[in-house]
Amino acid sequence: MHNYALCVTKVPVGVLGASGYAGRELCHLISRHPELELRFATANDQRGSRARFSGREVVFVASEDAPLASAELVFSALPHGASKEWVSHARNAGARVVDLSSDLRPGNGCEGVPYGLTEVMREQLRGADVVANPGCYATAVLLALAPLAERGLIAADSAVVVSAASGVTGAGNSPKRELLFAEVAEDFRAYAVGNVHRHLAEMRATLAALSPVAVGASESAAVDFDLVFTPHLLPVARGILATITVTLSDDAVLAGGGPMQPWRDAYGAEPFVELARETPSIRDVAHRNVARIFVTPVAGVRRPTLLVFSAIDNLVKGAAGQAVQNGNVMLGLDETVGLPA
Amino acid sequence: MHNYALCVTKVPVGVLGASGYAGRELCHLISRHPELELRFATANDQRGSRARFSGREVVFVASEDAPLASAELVFSALPHGASKEWVSHARNAGARVVDLSSDLRPGNGCEGVPYGLTEVMREQLRGADVVANPGCYATAVLLALAPLAERGLIAADSAVVVSAASGVTGAGNSPKRELLFAEVAEDFRAYAVGNVHRHLAEMRATLAALSPVAVGASESAAVDFDLVFTPHLLPVARGILATITVTLSDDAVLAGGGPMQPWRDAYGAEPFVELARETPSIRDVAHRNVARIFVTPVAGVRRPTLLVFSAIDNLVKGAAGQAVQNGNVMLGLDETVGLPA
Amino acid sequence: MHNYALCVTKVPVGVLGASGYAGRELCHLISRHPELELRFATANDQRGSRARFSGREVVFVASEDAPLASAELVFSALPHGASKEWVSHARNAGARVVDLSSDLRPGNGCEGVPYGLTEVMREQLRGADVVANPGCYATAVLLALAPLAERGLIAADSAVVVSAASGVTGAGNSPKRELLFAEVAEDFRAYAVGNVHRHLAEMRATLAALSPVAVGASESAAVDFDLVFTPHLLPVARGILATITVTLSDDAVLAGGGPMQPWRDAYGAEPFVELARETPSIRDVAHRNVARIFVTPVAGVRRPTLLVFSAIDNLVKGAAGQAVQNGNVMLGLDETVGLPA
Amino acid sequence: MHNYALCVTKVPVGVLGASGYAGRELCHLISRHPELELRFATANDQRGSRARFSGREVVFVASEDAPLASAELVFSALPHGASKEWVSHARNAGARVVDLSSDLRPGNGCEGVPYGLTEVMREQLRGADVVANPGCYATAVLLALAPLAERGLIAADSAVVVSAASGVTGAGNSPKRELLFAEVAEDFRAYAVGNVHRHLAEMRATLAALSPVAVGASESAAVDFDLVFTPHLLPVARGILATITVTLSDDAVLAGGGPMQPWRDAYGAEPFVELARETPSIRDVAHRNVARIFVTPVAGVRRPTLLVFSAIDNLVKGAAGQAVQNGNVMLGLDETVGLPA
Repeated sequence: MHNYALCVTKVPVGVLGASGYAGRELCHLISRHPELELRFATANDQRGSRARFSGREVVFVASEDAPLASAELVFSALPHGASKEWVSHARNAGARVVDLSSDLRPGNGCEGVPYGLTEVMREQLRGADVVANPGCYATAVLLALAPLAERGLIAADSAVVVSAASGVTGAGNSPKRELLFAEVAEDFRAYAVGNVHRHLAEMRATLAALSPVAVGASESAAVDFDLVFTPHLLPVARGILATITVTLSDDAVLAGGGPMQPWRDAYGAEPFVELARETPSIRDVAHRNVARIFVTPVAGVRRPTLLVFSAIDNLVKGAAGQAVQNGNVMLGLDETVGLPA
Repeated sequence: MHNYALCVTKVPVGVLGASGYAGRELCHLISRHPELELRFATANDQRGSRARFSGREVVFVASEDAPLASAELVFSALPHGASKEWVSHARNAGARVVDLSSDLRPGNGCEGVPYGLTEVMREQLRGADVVANPGCYATAVLLALAPLAERGLIAADSAVVVSAASGVTGAGNSPKRELLFAEVAEDFRAYAVGNVHRHLAEMRATLAALSPVAVGASESAAVDFDLVFTPHLLPVARGILATITVTLSDDAVLAGGGPMQPWRDAYGAEPFVELARETPSIRDVAHRNVARIFVTPVAGVRRPTLLVFSAIDNLVKGAAGQAVQNGNVMLGLDETVGLPA
Repeated sequence: MHNYALCVTKVPVGVLGASGYAGRELCHLISRHPELELRFATANDQRGSRARFSGREVVFVASEDAPLASAELVFSALPHGASKEWVSHARNAGARVVDLSSDLRPGNGCEGVPYGLTEVMREQLRGADVVANPGCYATAVLLALAPLAERGLIAADSAVVVSAASGVTGAGNSPKRELLFAEVAEDFRAYAVGNVHRHLAEMRATLAALSPVAVGASESAAVDFDLVFTPHLLPVARGILATITVTLSDDAVLAGGGPMQPWRDAYGAEPFVELARETPSIRDVAHRNVARIFVTPVAGVRRPTLLVFSAIDNLVKGAAGQAVQNGNVMLGLDETVGLPA
Repeated sequence: MHNYALCVTKVPVGVLGASGYAGRELCHLISRHPELELRFATANDQRGSRARFSGREVVFVASEDAPLASAELVFSALPHGASKEWVSHARNAGARVVDLSSDLRPGNGCEGVPYGLTEVMREQLRGADVVANPGCYATAVLLALAPLAERGLIAADSAVVVSAASGVTGAGNSPKRELLFAEVAEDFRAYAVGNVHRHLAEMRATLAALSPVAVGASESAAVDFDLVFTPHLLPVARGILATITVTLSDDAVLAGGGPMQPWRDAYGAEPFVELARETPSIRDVAHRNVARIFVTPVAGVRRPTLLVFSAIDNLVKGAAGQAVQNGNVMLGLDETVGLPA
């Protein structure tokens, strides 16, 4: 009634920093990926211990003992600050690298490395040797705002107000009292308030890079609107929802196709961006490599204003999933292979 | 070693609509209140059934069977739309009323009834026969914004952006699929988006009433700034956090005492408003009749901007607790008696 | 570097009762199954509405409108009592059926239908036209006890004490007050106490069928030990953990290989039974079609006693996953295809 | 209409180990207690930091700096092993002590100290200088079993099977990976399996002390039944439910008043034991100093068997609340004063 015939030579890959939540998600995705093969996974604190990913057992090794040269592609999920050095080691060993830390992202003092916001930056990623994988909040916010920024639709001198909330896996799995179940359950609070979150730099730099350049302006000019970004900690394990209030430079452009037209134009053919008919929820995107976006106008205000909602799984589209998506692009594979849509 | 001598004649009170979450919280608070005595509690669907509040057993009766005249004060926690009629019945029976529904609140087509935002409207509540108890979101947002609005510190033509999140008891205890545990747990989403939430009317009307009137302007003029209000549903049972971004008309006024000076001036002596030294969390205020507020300036933006955070327990300060607080004021009791601070 | 060549003719299947939690899980698994194709999904209350499963959109139809004859295999996730009739309709239309209701399970007055506890009953399922899929609790308990029962290792006249706990999806998605988030969160309670749960019949009947028959005893004789089964409701969405205390007829038999030897003998080669080295948790098995079992002796007691722990995902191995596994066996497919291990 | 006149000289008390969950609950209860006054609270790791309990601010000091002699009664919530030494220091300074650790409990090598299972041991606590406060699980289990044990109703040579589940505050607030929100949420597992939990010793010793002594038997004889105790970790902050299966020595004794008669006889007049009409849930007892007990017979078994359910708040009746209750008894105060019923 049916038969298979398939012959795949898998690409050998490695994971640095495999014991954190993003690192584990990477191992999980790679184990299920039909064209990647996990050659090593490092976890200094847990060297020698075993973990199972999709039924496959992995023994963690120390980073120093990782056979970097055995991998064609290395994913680094090492902590911020520590990752940069290991990206160099992996490059010197001949591997290409997707770096999930913030070390090489735009706005962090290290320009020039392609930024792996796949749907927006795809052309720069093909054939790249190193890609800086975006932060989780940055992914949700930038995928939501890119269609407006690229079209110059955000009002000059306005403030884009982003209130975002993340599940606790975004804070990592190092034991901290404030992350204990009895502290987080039945609670909700803001943190990094007053525009001091680490991801603001890559958000601002990327919005500036996407915005149309005024005649005579320097290419490096910042955007002419402000960003107010306030993250919150949710009593859930995974997921990010960004609620974004944007004042439009001109509401005429939206008249034709309704408020979601710029997003339809930008993402209509994207397999990993869903344009929703109602507000997205983090449950909608859990364990999936998608951003789910909904846009609605705001009633009863003087200036044309949109609410843009963007939901992702912080560990998948906001970290490991997008990293594999970028790896697929870098390696010339089908971009969607091995990724839960 | 110790002795007591106390002689209290308790005030007889009744609760209409006692089987919902707010109604139950009312019964619970009244049972522990040293100067109130619960004479009846109505619940049409559960007439005849028994419930325990702080160790005291109550038998629910139908509203039609409630001995309204036996109560000096009646709390109505009936649904919006159904409450107004019963407020009249209770008044006709000689009782004074605190109405927890939206029926009599400002901006709902029924002006003139004192609005029970206790800390802001206290003088209008003393001796009032009927008080409209504020909505839960409105309480959190108005206590946060009143000090700025009263001083004219919100920039004209700006938009005050409110992102708020509430525990599920805010949605009542009628069985609905979207409120089932398996739907709400591990989820987070916005609702009533685009400025259509019921509480906007009372928020706008109250902010207009508080704002200084420009010379020559009509007293009924609306405020000269906009409100963008987006509520979210949290996977917690109780609590509201409002995250509010406000553009200031003038940052000079804040120079002296720092960003929290207007709130210290307004609430320094209030027993039920806490000015925090860090972002408030809903756990901080659970089961307490307090609003906890924190203010911080926003860095890296062109116009002077504040973030104001306000946390309450939606069932206590946002409903039953504030209702009892208003009852205390109406009856001339110590305002704090019987309320968990 | 790699290439594919595959040619699969998919088996057309249908789902009756697709809007409940088990029905949705079935649609989800079928959508990802490489050798099954979903031809219809019924949901009387939601006829005409759309749902997405793994990126594929499905429109629910009424049961009356289901093209039963178009399916080679029909899964019925209809409610207990209502399912039996539709199993007949599907059979009359020429389809084979996996019935997830309790209607056709042993001990429910309808003997003779093969019982789909796959690992234990596999031989009876090959080529069967109708299979009764086990209850979720029964799956966890019977997979745990079968190795002891088959070997006659449970002490005569003893009571096997089963304390089990299930996530709320086990109670279905009909709106009921006691299943609201605000009722279930931060709570835990027993239900159906005193040995009155629906699954006891199939547990007892199956244990009797598995137990060695004493010489001269009737084959239909009941087992010579008792079962005390107490289920509890957990504040989690999915998962079952059964904690089972068993008195052994003889501890000598365990001496050789340690307490897990009977389970190693029974399940050593099973792809969907995991023998753990520590107590299993429901997180270990979430979204996976596995039962995870751990056994340990009890210290400080007079008679040889084992604790057996068994964890499953109630919607996967406890319902939809095992149904697909049984479908795979019935159709002669690889038993593991399409199922998350 | 009313007036107060009260004159209370409060008893000065201190808390050793005030920063853990039980210690904080103690400070909270003492702050609301009308006849106790908190003189000091120690927390070595957090010395100098401030905490608020019921609106009162407390500054933690090191244990070495605690003015032990200023307190008439000291509560020690120090860790097991470390507490015993500080009990001596407090005694030497002239204070009486309630020790919440296991150091002085029966079965832990330190007999002779009165065991503060208040309802069962009350007479030994009046005027005691030191009381060993029971463990949380032991409280739930022993209050459930005492009426049977005292009456000799537990079948000889039977095993009492206890499956219990606790909220995570039972595991303390030291940061550990396995207690992080993302690990505990949506999970459930057993721990300390095979009869190795610390509380078994005090359970066995107390059951032996309560059981009628057979003629000729030594008073120190152990009970003639076994205990199988299996604790589980619940994804809730607080609460314990014990599900206990007991084989009766004789069911005739229950015939008269139904299965709950022994509990009615034992606890009918107890303010802090509730005999329920249905299975108790941990929500029923949260934040309350009560044990809620329900008993039901088991159908379909050979020997007369009862299920006994017992729910407490592990931090209140299972720790701080019972400690205050014991303190009330020791000091000759009204036993119920200051305790939430």
